Order: sequence, then structure tokens, then C-alpha cells
Amino acid sequence: MLPRGRPRALGAAALLLLLLIGFFLLGGDPECERLEPDGRAGDLGCPRCPLTPRVPSDGRLRGASALHGDPLAGHWDHNRSACDPWPQLPPKCELLHVAIVCAGHNSSREVITLVKSLLFYRKNPLHLHLVTDAVARNILETLFRTWMVPALGVSFYHAEQLKPQISWIPNKHYSGLYGLMKLVLPGILPPGLARVIVLDTDVTFASDIAELWALFAHFSGVILLWLDRLRQVGWEQMWKLTAQRELLTLAATSLADQDIFNAVIKEHPELVQPLPCVWNVQLSDHTRAEHCYSEAADLKVIHWNSPKKVRVKNKHAGFFRNFYLTFLGYDGNLLRRELFGCPSQTLPEAEQLQRALAQLDEEDACFEFRQQQLTVHRVHITFLPHKPPPPRPHDITLVAQLSMDRLQMLEALCRHWPGPMSLALYLTDAEAQQFLHFVEASPVLSARQDVAYHVVYREGPLYPVNQLRNVALAQALTPYVFLSDIDFLPAYSLYDYLRASIEQLELGSRRKAALVVPAFETLRYRFTFPSSKAELLALLDSGLLYTFRYHEWPQGHAPTDYARWREAQAPYRVQWAADYEPYVVVPRDCPRYDPRFVGFGWNKVAHIVELDAQEFELLVLPEAFTIHLPHAPSLDISRFRSSSTYRDCLQALKEEFHQDLSRRYGAAALKYLTALQQPRSPA
Amino acid sequence: MLPRGRPRALGAAALLLLLLIGFFLLGGDPECERLEPDGRAGDLGCPRCPLTPRVPSDGRLRGASALHGDPLAGHWDHNRSACDPWPQLPPKCELLHVAIVCAGHNSSREVITLVKSLLFYRKNPLHLHLVTDAVARNILETLFRTWMVPALGVSFYHAEQLKPQISWIPNKHYSGLYGLMKLVLPGILPPGLARVIVLDTDVTFASDIAELWALFAHFSGVILLWLDRLRQVGWEQMWKLTAQRELLTLAATSLADQDIFNAVIKEHPELVQPLPCVWNVQLSDHTRAEHCYSEAADLKVIHWNSPKKVRVKNKHAGFFRNFYLTFLGYDGNLLRRELFGCPSQTLPEAEQLQRALAQLDEEDACFEFRQQQLTVHRVHITFLPHKPPPPRPHDITLVAQLSMDRLQMLEALCRHWPGPMSLALYLTDAEAQQFLHFVEASPVLSARQDVAYHVVYREGPLYPVNQLRNVALAQALTPYVFLSDIDFLPAYSLYDYLRASIEQLELGSRRKAALVVPAFETLRYRFTFPSSKAELLALLDSGLLYTFRYHEWPQGHAPTDYARWREAQAPYRVQWAADYEPYVVVPRDCPRYDPRFVGFGWNKVAHIVELDAQEFELLVLPEAFTIHLPHAPSLDISRFRSSSTYRDCLQALKEEFHQDLSRRYGAAALKYLTALQQPRSPA
Repeated sequence: MLPRGRPRALGAAALLLLLLIGFFLLGGDPECERLEPDGRAGDLGCPRCPLTPRVPSDGRLRGASALHGDPLAGHWDHNRSACDPWPQLPPKCELLHVAIVCAGHNSSREVITLVKSLLFYRKNPLHLHLVTDAVARNILETLFRTWMVPALGVSFYHAEQLKPQISWIPNKHYSGLYGLMKLVLPGILPPGLARVIVLDTDVTFASDIAELWALFAHFSGVILLWLDRLRQVGWEQMWKLTAQRELLTLAATSLADQDIFNAVIKEHPELVQPLPCVWNVQLSDHTRAEHCYSEAADLKVIHWNSPKKVRVKNKHAGFFRNFYLTFLGYDGNLLRRELFGCPSQTLPEAEQLQRALAQLDEEDACFEFRQQQLTVHRVHITFLPHKPPPPRPHDITLVAQLSMDRLQMLEALCRHWPGPMSLALYLTDAEAQQFLHFVEASPVLSARQDVAYHVVYREGPLYPVNQLRNVALAQALTPYVFLSDIDFLPAYSLYDYLRASIEQLELGSRRKAALVVPAFETLRYRFTFPSSKAELLALLDSGLLYTFRYHEWPQGHAPTDYARWREAQAPYRVQWAADYEPYVVVPRDCPRYDPRFVGFGWNKVAHIVELDAQEFELLVLPEAFTIHLPHAPSLDISRFRSSSTYRDCLQALKEEFHQDLSRRYGAAALKYLTALQQPRSPA
Repeated sequence: MLPRGRPRALGAAALLLLLLIGFFLLGGDPECERLEPDGRAGDLGCPRCPLTPRVPSDGRLRGASALHGDPLAGHWDHNRSACDPWPQLPPKCELLHVAIVCAGHNSSREVITLVKSLLFYRKNPLHLHLVTDAVARNILETLFRTWMVPALGVSFYHAEQLKPQISWIPNKHYSGLYGLMKLVLPGILPPGLARVIVLDTDVTFASDIAELWALFAHFSGVILLWLDRLRQVGWEQMWKLTAQRELLTLAATSLADQDIFNAVIKEHPELVQPLPCVWNVQLSDHTRAEHCYSEAADLKVIHWNSPKKVRVKNKHAGFFRNFYLTFLGYDGNLLRRELFGCPSQTLPEAEQLQRALAQLDEEDACFEFRQQQLTVHRVHITFLPHKPPPPRPHDITLVAQLSMDRLQMLEALCRHWPGPMSLALYLTDAEAQQFLHFVEASPVLSARQDVAYHVVYREGPLYPVNQLRNVALAQALTPYVFLSDIDFLPAYSLYDYLRASIEQLELGSRRKAALVVPAFETLRYRFTFPSSKAELLALLDSGLLYTFRYHEWPQGHAPTDYARWREAQAPYRVQWAADYEPYVVVPRDCPRYDPRFVGFGWNKVAHIVELDAQEFELLVLPEAFTIHLPHAPSLDISRFRSSSTYRDCLQALKEEFHQDLSRRYGAAALKYLTALQQPRSPA
């Protein structure tokens, strides 16, 4: 969140860390007045933040405040906490609470970096209280469910419910409204929650949050007293009155939460207790701000208002940036570690998973396959801003999956498919950042709001192709999906043609069908894409194009009946045959891909079997086509194709798949079993 | 280092952390005797390591020992240090010393992970004292020179010099000899060095090493006294006598350093002071060992005897592994951060670099190019075990560079080129680990000891192609080099043929020449490589092969004169012409590539200009050929080729290159300048 509001003595900047004690109560510390004129503590030379009343007028220095009670009732030795790098930590295994307001795609990405830094240093169980809009909730619920971090609880609260309490404050800024929610957080958090640390999304921890929590402990035992006083002081009335008064004298059109906090503090300077400045270290050219932390032994929290500051030529910029980048690219899977020496707090799903993994036989030749099948990948849906397509009855989402080595396909794909897409990307955390930069640098990709990118984080040696497909499929928001692969470029007209075909064929109401898009391939790098079926047929005849896998795996597409397709003027029905794996258009609620097929081989074949078993008609469209472009074999594929174990395991997977088919479809599945032959090549 | 030696009461395990105070002196702490029978301190329930005399007999628990002086003279409150999670830290900015013994390729990789974890948590200047063999020294000198970490000093010591002092001890294990060096380290470290922490290469820090250093501070002021006593006790004689005596009664054929330490300790139990066990946390199924740390608030150091333990089904395995993996894949560039609040300790090279970077104009359209040119990439030479080729007068090393997306070329390249190779790989730290696994999983690659892989760590947006080539070139150890590109496969016979040609042409003595290997390309994926010139010509005639870049950039290879080559029976000389960029064989001491050419374009052209300016004859070999395989354009190339800024900057680079040429070669360079035309396409 960027500073906004009028320039004023107290600064327009965000309060970084706000310690809420049940409800708010502000209290000053008389010791804070005993400062040297330079704003530093006079005694031990220990770094101090200037007190709130002395915050410099340039608005650059943001006072992070610990709000607490009557200093006489429960005195907090401020010097000690500022100077002593090792305050007493909270009891081992005590649950610490953190609240964060988060809305939209970009904030959701930010908050994950914050949470990674929290988890990296934490040694206590944590509970996150996330106040979110619908977008952030959807993203973060999926993320935390699949992340399965032990000893991490997450609760969601509807930001919508808080809006009425603050929407009367003039605010022209979307994120500003969410910023203001910090004023009314106590109203939404559980009444039984006594203490919570409220964080902005753009901070990075460089230490254990327990040390921050420990600042509560300095006045433990008097919290109830403070709660009483909180009610006496009446925070809710206090901030509202202040805000209303400010609005009367204010020419500006909006107030930020910081402005209101600062205004209250200005009126009641005796009620504020600044945090040691190491808890709010910001990139600043302001000497005084720098003074505040440059002699500290330790930085606890780094406040990045914007990663764009990377470019600032501040001598500490490198230091700041490196902490931020550390957690930006940090492998979140590594944070799935149990707390040491605390009672196990594994989630039921995680426990079940661990049991299943423990039952695997490590001596089994297919151990890696079985392990990969069981792996729950961390999933970050709609990693980049995305606008859901408007509801249209025949709309189609192109569904595909890819890893880093196919990123260069995306621009061409966008040119060929003007409709919605749902793409699953199999990436490391660091690669996800590279991907982000790749999209930002591409005008073609940046311009598309209807392409949803879902990051599935890498884990394990085998490419989880069908799990990826299922993630992309689950996030498709149109009634139909085109199940494609990333190295195919559809005919320019395909999107429009498919929608027209769905309408004409009355698929929605009348027929349960899968529309087959015939697949071709070129072995050439430089290649002019045919703009019509006629052009395609000419290329086919001249040997510049082939039907897909004509040389190595003709049975994969033979049932499409290319000879008939050449002449066809209308859709025609084809019959399933062994090893058939066409690219199809189906309703969004079609069967999922079988996640047991990891690595490369038979993953689409099994899905087509499933469609056939569920009695989908297979209808080939006469004007549809898609063309496979050449590429070097991926690392994953070359690593496993050469291995005989790989082939044996694939065979085992097939057999298990057919056993399951028989179980589910009974005698009707017999034809698949009898069709099962020794594979000539994995699909 | 794995445990070895006889099973014995004191365990055959390594002493993990050895605190050396100038010289050695062992001293016991009487408080350590006041333990409950379960080996824990009786008072505060704080975790304690069993004392050395009580080390269980299974040898699993390794006592990490702090060796110090007369407990009466300078008492160290052991309970406090074990229980207080926050011992007093050393003075801010105090220089801490660490000694590590490191030999060979694999230990060099290990030590880097250790150093990353040290640097991540450290807040003090550090000095590393590295006792190395020639291999490790070569690797680590290059690494630290290019890493340029502020406030990190590194000294190297020849392990060879220490060998005579320990080689009398029977030892059949190469690394064992290096293990024994810890016994005699004080003899090689500077006499003025008062304190040093000695670390094994297979540990990972999970906290600031200053906390470990702080354990010295508990008896500060009495160190000189201890030094006196150290000399009185006579450590050097003590361990030698013990070792000799052990050998008399010993059936085994070798002694490890741990055996000797343990034997001395056994004889003088009153002289040992165990470290709090959090400083040596090991993966163990042994209840007692686990007890030692499972209730600790904090783990300080994790001791990985071998990453293979990843597979162990210990309930803490995940925790251990994740710490290790954190630093294994951590971007070492992020550790180039200045210490906060300490006087700047930037290295002169780094300062010069920073000045140069600061002088760049951020508004310059070519800012990214200039920044990339100045970037000093961290370099890890011979990342994997490598056996230098035996000296042979006409031997040739294939030199090339690649990034992750070309890894799948390596196996084919190994099949085509049976001779030595020097390859620079442009990778992130995490990718370097993927690369390691890739090689380990490939029988073809694992079998080759004559391929040297040099990791150049990624930094910046442009591919530093010529810097990579220079790294690979500098590490070639044969008299000649074949300067190739990774997407070319040489004729199967090329290695032998080139050596024979060099001999016949008497290149070494008579002629200053560059041998041109004619280049071809296929646009097809599936392609049978020609086994002779005759087969190649047949493919050329049938349109399955082309001369390289025949369609887009014919001038790049036109001077090779393919028509003449068809008929040639003997090497023939050709003349330089504009944009010529053949693949050549030259002496190892040939001119370096111009590092100003970053990204893609004109990088080889400039090198050939340089060769011509230095009057290398260009001799085309009649039987030599190499073939370019198709591949998707790399991300780097597609990102920049489309940009007009890229082309403008490339043009600016060319002009600057020609200005430099004129400066260096005077009138002789005029022909290059006149030949410089507007580029039709970047090379």
C-alpha cells in the first residue's frame, strides 16, 4: 500500500505493525520522552525510533506503534525491548495469531511471500486470520489446503461484511477501502481472541515473529485491565469522531487508515507506544530513519512498500531487496516441516497422506510413480490478474498444462486462440517469478485478461501431467472446454467454429458428445500456418504436414479417420478403438483425468476410455484442426523414456487402471481390457 | 564424512564442532557431573547432552565438544549456555574466524552449502580459513573471487603441508587423511589467530554463528591464561602418544581423527566440555540423542552426514532435509549483501564494479546491456568430479556453453565427441542441483570423467554468451580447443580427424591457424546422422540437410566456400569476410571472446574478426563437419529478438567494438570498419 492522503505532520504513511490487544487501547510510555534531540536514546546508544510527536514532517518515517494500556498499570520497559536483542520469548508451542487484510490477485501473491518469511523463522504454531475478498479467498483457500503446513491454522473472514462500517469515509481507491479495514478489525475477529499481530501484506520478516509477540509478554497479567480501559476509552467512537472532524477541515477527497490513526494519535500523544524501529525497517534516504536502524544489531521486519524500489539507489537497497527476494523465490514446500518439540499438529489430510506414503514399498520398482501419484502439489490458482469470461452459453475454455520449457508457446497460442484459457504451469517458486516477469515483458500476454494461469508447484521427479490437467480443468469457467496440449496451435478460426458447432449440434441439451479436433504435425521449424482447411490439405499433400504421430504412433489418432475428414462436410461419428487419444471439446463437468498417470504415457488415452465408458459420442468436426509444432524432447520425457523401469511401471499403471474400470463399469469395460495390448510406444 | 573406525565406547563418530583456542586445551566442567541418570540437567529441565564419559556405546551420538581451559580459572556457566537461548553475542562487527578442511570436487560443493547457511544468518564479518587440496583450492578461489561477498575474508592453506604430520597414522581412506588434519590445524593457522571455529563440510547452520562464537565470550579475559595452560598440557604430544598407543592394541588398519580425539578424551575426561546439543543436531533414531534436542527451543546447527539420509524414515527427517535443501538451492547472489551497521568491507574489485555500475545512465536505452556486461557472475568451475586429460600434444577440448533448456543435448554430444569437453552452464543455484541429478541419472554422462562442467550462476536479464564461452575456454586443459555451440553435433570421426590434422599441418610449431569445421543444419527432428562426408553430401543433395543458416544468414558461413569443400581433398585457405562466423579449432591461448556481446547477436563474428586481426590463417578441413539440430528458440532469444531496442543496442555494441579494434590494430582494422554494414539479422 502506498502512502496517500494529505502531507501532514504525522505523515500519511501506513502503520506497519499494529498490535491489537483484544480491542484497541493507546498508551504512552513516559520514558519515550527522555530522548536526545537527535531522536536517539541518550543512554546506551541503542537505536530508538523518534516518538510519534516527533515524527519528521516529510512523511517518510512511519511510526510502527504498539498500542497498549496505562503505562503505570503495567509498565513496559521500552529501553529494554528496544536494546535487548533477546526479549523473553513466549512459552514454547504457544499459538500466535496474525491478522492480514488481503484483496485481489496481486495482494494474494504478496501475502504468500510474507507468510513464507513468517514460516521460515517461526518456531511456534501460528493462526492466520485472513480478511479477504472473494478473489483472494478462492486463491488462498486453495493454496493453504494444498500447502498443508503443519501447525498453521487459517481462518477466513469476509471483507464485504466490514465495508459498511468504513464505506462512509470518502475513498476513491479500491485498496484504500481494504486499508481502512484495519480500523474495524476487532469487530470481525472472534471475541475470544485476546491478542493478534496485524500485518500489511508488503512486509518481509527477517526474524521469528515470536520476538514481536514477546512484546505483549512484557505486560502479561495486566491485559485484562487494559481490556477494561480499552472499553472505557471507547476506541470505536474515538476514531469515528476523529475521522468525521478531519473530513470537515479536509480539502482532499479521501482519507486513508493511516491518516485516521495518525489523527487519533495526534490528539492523544500520551496513548501511543512506538515499537522498536527494527520492527519496521524501511528503505529510505532519510538520514533520521536510517539512523533509527543502522546501528541495530538486527533487523526484524523489512517493509517493502513496493518491489519497484529495487531500483532505488539507496546504499541499503541491496540488503532490503535480498531479503525480499529470498522469500519470493523460496521453495514453499520446504516450509511443510513439523515444529520441533511441539505436539504434532498435522492436519487430518496430511496425516492420511503420510500414512499412505509410509505404506509404500521403497523396494518396489515403481516406488517413484506411486510416490508421485500421492503427492499433493501446492496450487496457486489465478497467479496473475484474471477477469472471468462473461457467461455465454456456448463459450469454450482452452485447457492445457506446461512447464518452463514451453513458455515461448504462450504468445503464439494467444494469437491462435482468442477465447478464454485455463493453463496449469508446473513451476518452482523461483520459476513462478520468472514466469511473472515473462508475462509482464510481453505485450501480447499482458493484454489478455481472459487467460488464467494456475501455478502448480514442482515436487518429485515425475511430471504429474494429469494432476496438472485437472487443476486447469477445474478452473475453467465456461460451459465447454477444449482439452489441448501446449505444443499445439489451433486453427485461427477454431474458437469461433467450435462455439458455432456446439450451438448447431445442440450439445447442451440434446447430445452427450465429445467433439474431436483432428490433429496434425509439422516437423519443420519454419512453417507458415494454414489459414484454411484447403491450405492444410495442400500442405499435407506436399509432405510439409503429417497427421499427428503418423510415423510413430498412428493408432493414437487413426479412429479420427483422416481420409473421411478430407471430404467431410458435416460432423461424423467415430468409434472408440484402443489407444485413441484425440483432442476433444467436452462440457466442463466431463470426467477428470486419472491422476495415476504421471510422467509421460497413456494419460490422454485413459481419459478417452473414460469418456467412451460414460457414453460420450465422438463427433469429428469437418473444419476443425490443430497442429503440433516441433520441439526438443523435454528433460522429463528424455529422462524416463529411455528407462525400462519406466515402461514396466507404465504397464503396471495401465493394468491397475483397467481393474478399476471393470470395477466401475462392469461387463461394459470388458472391451477396453481385451483391446489392451503391449504398448508399441508410450503416448 | 561418514563414521568409521572400530566400534567403541566413545563412538567412532566425527566431532562436529571443535572450538580451538589458539592451541588446544581440554578442560572439564564440574557442573556437567551433576546430571540426572537420564542424561538431562536436573534443575530446569533444559536439554543437555550426555557428557562425554556417558556417551552411549552405540556410537550414534556424537559429542560436540567445546574444548577449553581450567574451569576454576575461568568458569563457564554451562547450564546458562545450554538453557539460555540468547547468550550474549560478541561485540557488533567483531570478526569471527572459521576453519574448514576441504578436498576434492564433492566436498567443494558441500562446503558451499555450509557457507551459504553461515552467510544467511551471520551479522558479523567472517574470515574463512580453508585447508584445501589443489582441486578444492582451484574451485573455491574462483568461486569466492567471483562471489564478492562483502565482509567475508578467505585464506587458503595447503593441505599437502599437513600430510607429513599425520600420514604416519595408518589410513586407507583418502578423505580420512583430510579428516585427521583437524588434529594438526593449529600448526598451519596463523600464530596470531586466537580463536577459530572448526567445522565439518557437511553441516548446515540454522542460526547465527555468532551465537556459537559467543560461547567463547563466557570466559573472555582468561584466554591468555588458558593459552599458557595449553602449552603446559602439551596437546601435540598428548594426541600423538595416544594415537601410537591405540595403534599398538588395535587390529583395525586405520584410525580416524574422531578415534584419536575420543581416545584422548577417554583418558582425560575431566578436560572436556560438551557443547549444548543444539549445536550438533543429527538425524538419529536413538531416543537419547533425540531427547537431547527435541525439547530445545531452537536448533542451531544441523549435521548432515550425508544427504542420502533424506530417505531415512525418521520423524524429523523432513525437518532436517528442509534446512539442508534451503541452502542447497539458495541463490548465492543474494548473500552479496553488505553488513548492516558495520563499516563497509567491500572488496576493491567489488567497489570498482559498484562505481562502474553507478556511473551507468539508467535512462540509456541500452542500460540493461551495459549492466549485464559489467556483471561479475559467480563461477563454480568443475562442479562435478573431473579427471584432467593426460597431456597429449595434439589433444583438443570441445568448448561450449548452455543453459537448462539444452541439457538434453549432452548425451548426444558425448556420443559424438569422445574427447575432453569444457562446458559452461548458465544456471541458478537450484538448477545446478537439478543438473547434478540429471548427470547422476544418466549412465552416458556419469561414465565420462573428461567432461568438465563449469556453473556460471545466472544474474541479469541477458544471456552472457561470451562470458560463458570465456569461462569454458579458460578451463580447457588441452593445447587445442574446438569452439562449438551446444546445439551442434560433430561428425563421429571429428575428434580423431582434428587431432590428425593438427599433427599433419604442424600447427603447433609452423602455422598460426584456425581450422574451420564446415557447419550444416537439419530442420527435421528425426534425422539419421551421416556417418561420412559422402553420406552428408547425399543428404545435402536430397534437401534433408542445408548449409548452416542457408536461408536466413548465408553470409555467416559463405566464406567457408561449400562448393569448394564438396570437392576438396586437402585443407584450403579462405579469406575473412564481413559477418563470417565459422566454428574453428584454435590453440587454447587464442584470443578471448569479447564479453560486451551479451544476449544474442554478433558474439562469434567479433571473435573471428579478432582472430583475423591477429593474423590467424583460416584453413577449411575437407573431411570435417558439424550439424546443427533444430530446437525451439530459447526464452532469452525470443524475449529480445522481437525488440527494436535490442537491435539498436546490438548496433551500438558493434560500433564500440570497431572503435576498440581501430585503437588496438590501427590501420589494419580499417577493413573491418568498412565491411561493417547494417545487419540483416543478428547472428
